[in-house]
Amino acid sequence: MNVNNFLQSEATQFVGTAAANTIGLVIGTIHEDIKALLQIPDEYQAISIVSSRTGTVAQAIAIDDAVKAVNAKLLRFEMAIDAGKQCGQGCLFVLGTENISDARRLVEIALKQIDYWAACIYINEVGHMESHVTPRAGEILHEIFGTPLGKAFGVIGAAPAGIGIVAVDQAMKAAPVDIVWYGSPSHNLTMMNEFSAGISGDVSAVQKALEAGKQVGCELLRVCGITPISITKVHEVCGPDYVKENYTPTSCLKTDNTSDER
Amino acid sequence: MNVNNFLQSEATQFVGTAAANTIGLVIGTIHEDIKALLQIPDEYQAISIVSSRTGTVAQAIAIDDAVKAVNAKLLRFEMAIDAGKQCGQGCLFVLGTENISDARRLVEIALKQIDYWAACIYINEVGHMESHVTPRAGEILHEIFGTPLGKAFGVIGAAPAGIGIVAVDQAMKAAPVDIVWYGSPSHNLTMMNEFSAGISGDVSAVQKALEAGKQVGCELLRVCGITPISITKVHEVCGPDYVKENYTPTSCLKTDNTSDER
Amino acid sequence: MNVNNFLQSEATQFVGTAAANTIGLVIGTIHEDIKALLQIPDEYQAISIVSSRTGTVAQAIAIDDAVKAVNAKLLRFEMAIDAGKQCGQGCLFVLGTENISDARRLVEIALKQIDYWAACIYINEVGHMESHVTPRAGEILHEIFGTPLGKAFGVIGAAPAGIGIVAVDQAMKAAPVDIVWYGSPSHNLTMMNEFSAGISGDVSAVQKALEAGKQVGCELLRVCGITPISITKVHEVCGPDYVKENYTPTSCLKTDNTSDER
Repeated sequence: MNVNNFLQSEATQFVGTAAANTIGLVIGTIHEDIKALLQIPDEYQAISIVSSRTGTVAQAIAIDDAVKAVNAKLLRFEMAIDAGKQCGQGCLFVLGTENISDARRLVEIALKQIDYWAACIYINEVGHMESHVTPRAGEILHEIFGTPLGKAFGVIGAAPAGIGIVAVDQAMKAAPVDIVWYGSPSHNLTMMNEFSAGISGDVSAVQKALEAGKQVGCELLRVCGITPISITKVHEVCGPDYVKENYTPTSCLKTDNTSDER
Repeated sequence: MNVNNFLQSEATQFVGTAAANTIGLVIGTIHEDIKALLQIPDEYQAISIVSSRTGTVAQAIAIDDAVKAVNAKLLRFEMAIDAGKQCGQGCLFVLGTENISDARRLVEIALKQIDYWAACIYINEVGHMESHVTPRAGEILHEIFGTPLGKAFGVIGAAPAGIGIVAVDQAMKAAPVDIVWYGSPSHNLTMMNEFSAGISGDVSAVQKALEAGKQVGCELLRVCGITPISITKVHEVCGPDYVKENYTPTSCLKTDNTSDER
Repeated sequence: MNVNNFLQSEATQFVGTAAANTIGLVIGTIHEDIKALLQIPDEYQAISIVSSRTGTVAQAIAIDDAVKAVNAKLLRFEMAIDAGKQCGQGCLFVLGTENISDARRLVEIALKQIDYWAACIYINEVGHMESHVTPRAGEILHEIFGTPLGKAFGVIGAAPAGIGIVAVDQAMKAAPVDIVWYGSPSHNLTMMNEFSAGISGDVSAVQKALEAGKQVGCELLRVCGITPISITKVHEVCGPDYVKENYTPTSCLKTDNTSDER
């Protein structure tokens, strides 16, 4: 078998890849035993799979967008411990659709949107800072974060967790918004070294809050390391050598993060 | 104390190392307080320890083989979150035996078998794919995976998890076999970004199923990165520079996984 | 906003960084909604935050020291899965104080002490070994590890977990001490590949026990890799190139850990 055959087979299809080491797949007719194992209801003939090594929020918002365009049901959402140096986690989304063309279209939209939303994840060698605002939360975001349907929704978070607390505190002080969800290592975040909050409110208030939080979070990361860079721009801005030098576990060992040697 | 003294001491013995950063140890007479803490029954005078940074299945099958040759009882089996870039996890096995010579022989066989089974773990910079078939499951595999004693047993799994689902689906469609166990990030796998299944059946059917699943899993990994390589052959095939270049967290940052630059 | 403004603002203050990628922060008046979310009692006007990427024990002892000097209450203690290649975990401490000057002084002392205690964490490319003894356990150590107040307390642990078991066993055999706490991947350690024990007793007995355990643990790490080095001395002793070569995920892939090539 080669990838071209695989692409063309009716039963299982590779759809594409996206930022954050994401792969998108569809299965036309899943094997009955696996259907039973994963408790997939009978009405879903086809399934969409979005699987990433890094991050969860950008993917959730992207899939929320896709489900506004294609009728589908979220069957499994799992966070995984992953992402190496920048803390954070990976994720697995499995969605059910009526037929394989819907399944495929859903994944295509989701992958495109993941490339878009991933640009809001900033990293340096010590941690990361992400903030995302969607003007109208759909069913997926409602289901995962409990945020009100149809209202603006944002997520702000940073790693290590202490920076996240300060960023969320600043966000809440900057505009009249509500926290509808939060994650800390022992709460909602599969023990990752991150603190984040899901925020609901008027779109301009959510934007103002997240902008304030992001500014503080990026400042604090900068005190510990290099100026945070969008994960979609690291190669372009810095070149592979720079990346290799700055994003290895080596930096774990630095005692004095503010010395001249960097 | 030096290692030679340590090797020769009656009470505690270093047995050896094996693939996947595995260390094998024995303790002739474990301290009473630790025995109580770990709830080790009185009849076990000596304990065998096999502790790895990477993988669990190869180790489980290896120890299953060893227990067919040496009388021993599995006292602790723990999976740990580990293995860095290639997802997956580490593991800790503690077994009780009647005396230290049995404990030592058990570990010697297990280490040798781990070197053998680890060859079936394929990795690239995005994830891994492993498949193992043993013609006859013994007590250890029965205890850990619930597979029928004496029947053929295989495990197939891949990371990131989405690739694992497709690989298991293809395996089930290729031959008449039964799923007796499965792992996803939130089920049985300590939140690792992997999907895997334990499969029972006639040995030829299990082999056929796993071969089909492995082929698809490796194809999908190849779409995201380099052609997967057995972990026991990476140095030999590619040389240390190649490894260094391809197996660092740097690759986390790649936006376009299908570009020409690789 | 820049860091200087941020440093001078009354409400939120960056205090400093320390070993093990630690950042220390204070919030003068935390937002009411976050206070409710994190269940912070009303009497604490200000909070201190200590957040690290690597390790937990050195930080716990450092904060225990700080709380002897400044009146404060531990509000949150969370371990996170982190630390990359050397196993281990990150941590988040949130403490409440009456006012911001106490909060700041607490963090200043804690950061200084973390630099001190982190010197007792030894690592190589396969794992780590740490042992710490404090002559008199205060409230923080009592609360986290259940160790008797005012008595000497030590923690000894190693990764991978199998090495930790042998080290703790040797420690217990070397002096008359009590185990008051233990951690294995599935017990108290958020699934990290480590085994460690909290030990109480007379200070000289605890020291003797930990010295014996540390010696064995370091010997066993050395069998699998380079001679373990204190994390605060890695750069100084070896230079950045050495570190880069030895502390990358590459070493995960080594089949033969005892070969001449290293």
